[in-house]
Amino acid sequence: MTVRTVQLVLHYDGSAFAGWQRQPKERTVQGELERVLTRLTGSHVAALGAGRTDAGVHARGQAVGVRVPERWSAATLRRALNALVPRDIWVAAAHEMRPEFHARFSALTRRYSYYVGTDEAARSPFRRHTEWALTRPLDRAALDHATALIVGDHCFIGFAVRGTAPSTDDHRCVVHVAEWRDRSGGLVFEIEANRFLHQMVRFLVGTIVEVAAGRREGDAIERLLAASTNDEVSPPAPPHGLFLDRVTYPSSLYSHAE
Amino acid sequence: MTVRTVQLVLHYDGSAFAGWQRQPKERTVQGELERVLTRLTGSHVAALGAGRTDAGVHARGQAVGVRVPERWSAATLRRALNALVPRDIWVAAAHEMRPEFHARFSALTRRYSYYVGTDEAARSPFRRHTEWALTRPLDRAALDHATALIVGDHCFIGFAVRGTAPSTDDHRCVVHVAEWRDRSGGLVFEIEANRFLHQMVRFLVGTIVEVAAGRREGDAIERLLAASTNDEVSPPAPPHGLFLDRVTYPSSLYSHAE
Repeated sequence: MTVRTVQLVLHYDGSAFAGWQRQPKERTVQGELERVLTRLTGSHVAALGAGRTDAGVHARGQAVGVRVPERWSAATLRRALNALVPRDIWVAAAHEMRPEFHARFSALTRRYSYYVGTDEAARSPFRRHTEWALTRPLDRAALDHATALIVGDHCFIGFAVRGTAPSTDDHRCVVHVAEWRDRSGGLVFEIEANRFLHQMVRFLVGTIVEVAAGRREGDAIERLLAASTNDEVSPPAPPHGLFLDRVTYPSSLYSHAE
Repeated sequence: MTVRTVQLVLHYDGSAFAGWQRQPKERTVQGELERVLTRLTGSHVAALGAGRTDAGVHARGQAVGVRVPERWSAATLRRALNALVPRDIWVAAAHEMRPEFHARFSALTRRYSYYVGTDEAARSPFRRHTEWALTRPLDRAALDHATALIVGDHCFIGFAVRGTAPSTDDHRCVVHVAEWRDRSGGLVFEIEANRFLHQMVRFLVGTIVEVAAGRREGDAIERLLAASTNDEVSPPAPPHGLFLDRVTYPSSLYSHAE
């Protein structure tokens, strides 16, 4: 059977999912997507995500690689999927890719946003699934100072769940962008890197916010960037403020034979 | 027992409620609020809403009148309620009112918004509970023309659920504002009037949208404003795009003896 390689770009509301990754008895995004792909094509289709988001984490740019029978064009597959996936998933785009495309290993960068609510209305029900409502004030200069420290090529083992990678080399990430922007009702943290360790964005946000709230010493970030364990990291920020926004690939991997 | 009259201003996400009004076996906003009020004060407290929103309709400005024992200040009541109400309700404000305040009969105006999504991303899961995603294009001039016709003092029986009021006089409403505004991803309809009939905003939006989509003749609005029944009204727009935004009262009803 001749197969076609397709990159799906997914939005999902993580609230009702036990994360991206398929699990035997839990509702997951990968599980729901593979169920529908299998129903459409008549044989099992694996859906490989660029990032394994945790329970409660959202996406509006998760990239997913699938291989489907050639009769499915990317556009037809997208329409058929959107007719069948549950309403908390949406396939925003579908691109035909070269056969060597791999959703995880081919990715050049990933970009995440983390939403923090700082006004009183952050408690509003319309914001409860997509923002972390903070009650204590943040020192904006301390926030920006701590954040600037993480830009560049660093070992982030101090900001990762233990045991996520076997060797020291695997904890290095190159952070291209890390900044806080003002928005109505609060702030948004934007970070782009070549790769991320498990729960790294949430640990970074949790720690930076504690520094900016005056609950941790100002040099906490430097110390964690130099650490060889996560023993001193702050609790991770809650999952519901986090969005996987974008994954980029080399343009040479996009098929232009469509 | 000396009582205090308090106006609560509520946000709620209508998605998981069978509407505002208390019902024996359904989860309703009034039911949840009265349950918590009764628990706090130790005796039954009735919560009277300015508008009886339907199942799925949201609020970020529902006004509610309650009478509580005098030991409860408005501020204390608000804090205690917010600690106990479910997360899809939030008490945004609480005001001490004169004893003659009545949430329904004292209201001068009510204001609603209706959100319509017109871009493809209206299908995104983050918008599914708060916008009506339209697939067919709307003629903006026709939309504005149809909407301008409803401003003023009219009989709206043509745009109401049958049997909501006993006499013809009761179908008159004075519409102060009715307009569509552009916003990212679509449009929002804003309407303010002295009062609204049952499902009137949803019937208005449903009919105006059909006119602007070219599916109904251009004089549909005039004909319905002159009608004595709702026989020719279009189906109501779905409830999840609708928000009760604001209810206003005479300033003389606010207590300044706090």
